[in-house]
Formats: sequence, C-alpha cells, structure tokens
Amino acid sequence: MSQHRHPGAPGRAGAVPALPDLPEATVARLPEYLRALHALADTGHETVSSEGLASAAGVNSAKLRKDLSHLGSYGTRGVGYDVTLLIEQIESVLGLTQCRSVALVGVGNLGHALAGYDGFASRGFRIAALLDADPSRVGEEINGLVVRHVDDLPRVAVEESISIGVIATPAPAAQAVADQLVAVGVTSILNFAPCVLSVPEGVDVRKVDLAIELQILSFHEHRKASLTALPGGLAATDTQEAIGT
Amino acid sequence: MSQHRHPGAPGRAGAVPALPDLPEATVARLPEYLRALHALADTGHETVSSEGLASAAGVNSAKLRKDLSHLGSYGTRGVGYDVTLLIEQIESVLGLTQCRSVALVGVGNLGHALAGYDGFASRGFRIAALLDADPSRVGEEINGLVVRHVDDLPRVAVEESISIGVIATPAPAAQAVADQLVAVGVTSILNFAPCVLSVPEGVDVRKVDLAIELQILSFHEHRKASLTALPGGLAATDTQEAIGT
Repeated sequence: MSQHRHPGAPGRAGAVPALPDLPEATVARLPEYLRALHALADTGHETVSSEGLASAAGVNSAKLRKDLSHLGSYGTRGVGYDVTLLIEQIESVLGLTQCRSVALVGVGNLGHALAGYDGFASRGFRIAALLDADPSRVGEEINGLVVRHVDDLPRVAVEESISIGVIATPAPAAQAVADQLVAVGVTSILNFAPCVLSVPEGVDVRKVDLAIELQILSFHEHRKASLTALPGGLAATDTQEAIGT
Repeated sequence: MSQHRHPGAPGRAGAVPALPDLPEATVARLPEYLRALHALADTGHETVSSEGLASAAGVNSAKLRKDLSHLGSYGTRGVGYDVTLLIEQIESVLGLTQCRSVALVGVGNLGHALAGYDGFASRGFRIAALLDADPSRVGEEINGLVVRHVDDLPRVAVEESISIGVIATPAPAAQAVADQLVAVGVTSILNFAPCVLSVPEGVDVRKVDLAIELQILSFHEHRKASLTALPGGLAATDTQEAIGT
C-alpha cells in the first residue's frame, strides 16, 4: 500500500502513540471527511480523489489536502486516497476506534430528542445514562434507558465509564450540572443550554445554541434584504421599513 | 447619550440603511453578547464594562471591543456600554427588530423537540409552519401547530411569510427539501441533517450536526488520554490499548 500513514503509527488503526495537536478547524472538518468517506465506502468506492472527497465534504480540495497532510496522509498520485485506510486513519485520530459512553443530563424536550437520536450510535457514541434533577422524571424509560437522578452521577460515571457529558438542561441549571460532571472526572462536555459554562483548565466544552444559529441566519437575511433595497434592487418589506424611518 | 451609534443609523433601532458586512466570526459572537446583555438588563444593570460583558459572554475583552467597534459602538470611557442601547444596536444589526417566521421540515424525533423548543420565541423567531413528507404525520398537532404536507410549502411560504427554513429530516431527504425551500424563495436554511447541501449562490446554509460535535470532543478526550500516558503521566485505558498494540 503506497498511501502514507501517520509516521508514528504501526500496523493498525487505534495505534497512534503520539497524537498530533491539530488545528481546531482541521479537527472540526475531520468528521465531515469521515462521513463522506463512509458514504463512499457504502457505495462500493475503494479510492477517491482529493477533489471528489472535498466536494462530498463541502470544502475546497487544497484545504482538504492540507488537513489530511497533518495526519501524514497524502494519497497516491493518479489514484487518490484509499477509502478504507483513510477511514481507519481519521477514526484513529478522532479516538473513534473505541465506543465512547455519553451521559445526558436533562431529559426535557431537547433531551428526549437527543436520547432518541440514532445518529450517535452509528458514529461511535453510546448514550449510556440519562439523568435529571426532577424527581417526577426519574424512573421514566426513554429508548430502553431508565432516567436516574442527577445525584446518582458519581455512581453512574463509574459504572458506565462515562467519557462525555451532554447538558440539555435549562440555562439556570447548567453550571451546577457542569460542576457535577467535572467533579466525577468528565473532561468533555457538550452544552445545549444557552449560557457560558465556567470549567477548570483541561476540560473541553463545545456549545450548541440553536437560537444563535437562527440569529446568525437572521443577520444574513437582514443584510440580503438591505442590499436588494438599494436603487435598482428589489425592496423587501423589512428594508423598506428601515429606509422609510 | 455619548455612546456612539452606527454612523448610518438615525434615531431608532431597526433603522440601519447601510448594513455593514461584518466578519463571520463577529456575526457569530453578536448573539452571545446579546444574550449576556439581556441577562444584565433583567438583573437591573444599566451599564456594563467591556470586561464585564466579555466575561459574561465568554470571550476576551479586546475581541469584544473590536467586534462592537464594527457596529460603531465604542462605549463611554469610565462608564462602559449602555446596556439598553447596545441591545438595540445588536438587535438592529442582526435583523431581530422584526419577528422572523420559520418553517420546520421533518417532525421526527429532533423536529418534535425543535417544534417544542421555547428558546426560539424569546429570541425573535416564530415557528410558523411544520411540514413533513410522511402522510401519517400530516394532521398531527405539535405545540398548537398542525403538521402539513411538505408539498404545501409554496402556499405555506406565502401565507406565513417564511423567512428561514429548518431541515430536520433524515439525510437522504434533505437535499430535496432544500431545493423545495429555495424554489419558494427561502434564502436562509438551518440544516440538522448530517449531509452537505448544494444551494445556489445567495442562499445561506448553517449546519448543526450533533454527532460531529461529539466527534470533536472525542478527539480532545483521545488526545488528553494520550498525553497523560506519557512517562510520568496517568495512563488512561484507551491509551494503554494504543501503546500496547
């Protein structure tokens, strides 16, 4: 096989003694490449050009080649990347060769949806525990898992080898939950509560705020409307209002 | 009032004839500032220092001052920013002075949760229509809205003045839904389906992929484990496995 591997890696996926400290933007794109590669593998492709993979992942090919070069993966001239090997390499770097156990705290509307989301299992994650502070929710069964009280977290974390905590509580409860997760040794948190969490160094927090995504789109809508309202453009309602004031 | 306003803006919020083309990263942070400012206003604060606001929004204060300077907002030395005025300025730039109508397509697990998420309304968005391609879901009532067939989209878009489309379908259905949204004139799409959408120029797509967020956290978990496995460090299970191979 002429495709290069990460220099430090011996024979198998999962064996990466010295993990590179990749740029955050590269880390964020690797899952996109992985998703595209799995789709290619599912449809019987054995190799893929950098252009083909870049297009499937929605990035430009120069960026893709640079990203993959960080992994020591350069493909083969005239052939491209070996799909299976590149999947192994990316999964190895992302630590997806083992299944990670997730504890989900907060089983309201959003928590329910996350608990039932089947996109996690297929990508290396197992929702291993559901917790809530509301006694009336404790004991409820969602997707085969029984909701436990959040005070059981220390025991649950050990029993289920929790690796990642997901917070889907209302904003006022989120910091206390984060503190509880950190106290039981969880160092990776995905926060859906619309607030900023304060955590010790060494704990990684990623935040998903659905309303913020809409507000960013709103800016672009607003701006597009203001541009079409220029002389000669097609004035949209909200822009006419702005100009009329 | 000595606090500067955006140069082109006359007296009122909502009146911004010439919208600045802000850096995307600044646009992404404005909603964070807005959330922090609303929390300050709710607790009776009339002014806030750049340090105080930066800390509440989870960014550094130099970045915050630079972001707000793009809006022509510099605060007042020794006093800081006027909270109410800055809220007006940011809401004006983000186009939040009008409520925007959202059409949500796909009312499976995640769509249900989004339809019931009360964080939208409080931040300037109204879920105005729920649509699904599955006839067995059409007619179902969620949070006071009746699910309609996705083929009704052209009529719904006009009736409800749809401004933003949210796609919460499975991945294989997402592109067709995006095409339908674009065909009825929607130019802002929030995509929850784990796939890349192809849209014409002028259409903005933002993507939220929950599994990708977990995969990014997985990288950091994996990397932290590999670091603690260095001589003298505390070896974690997955790292021992990697080294043992």
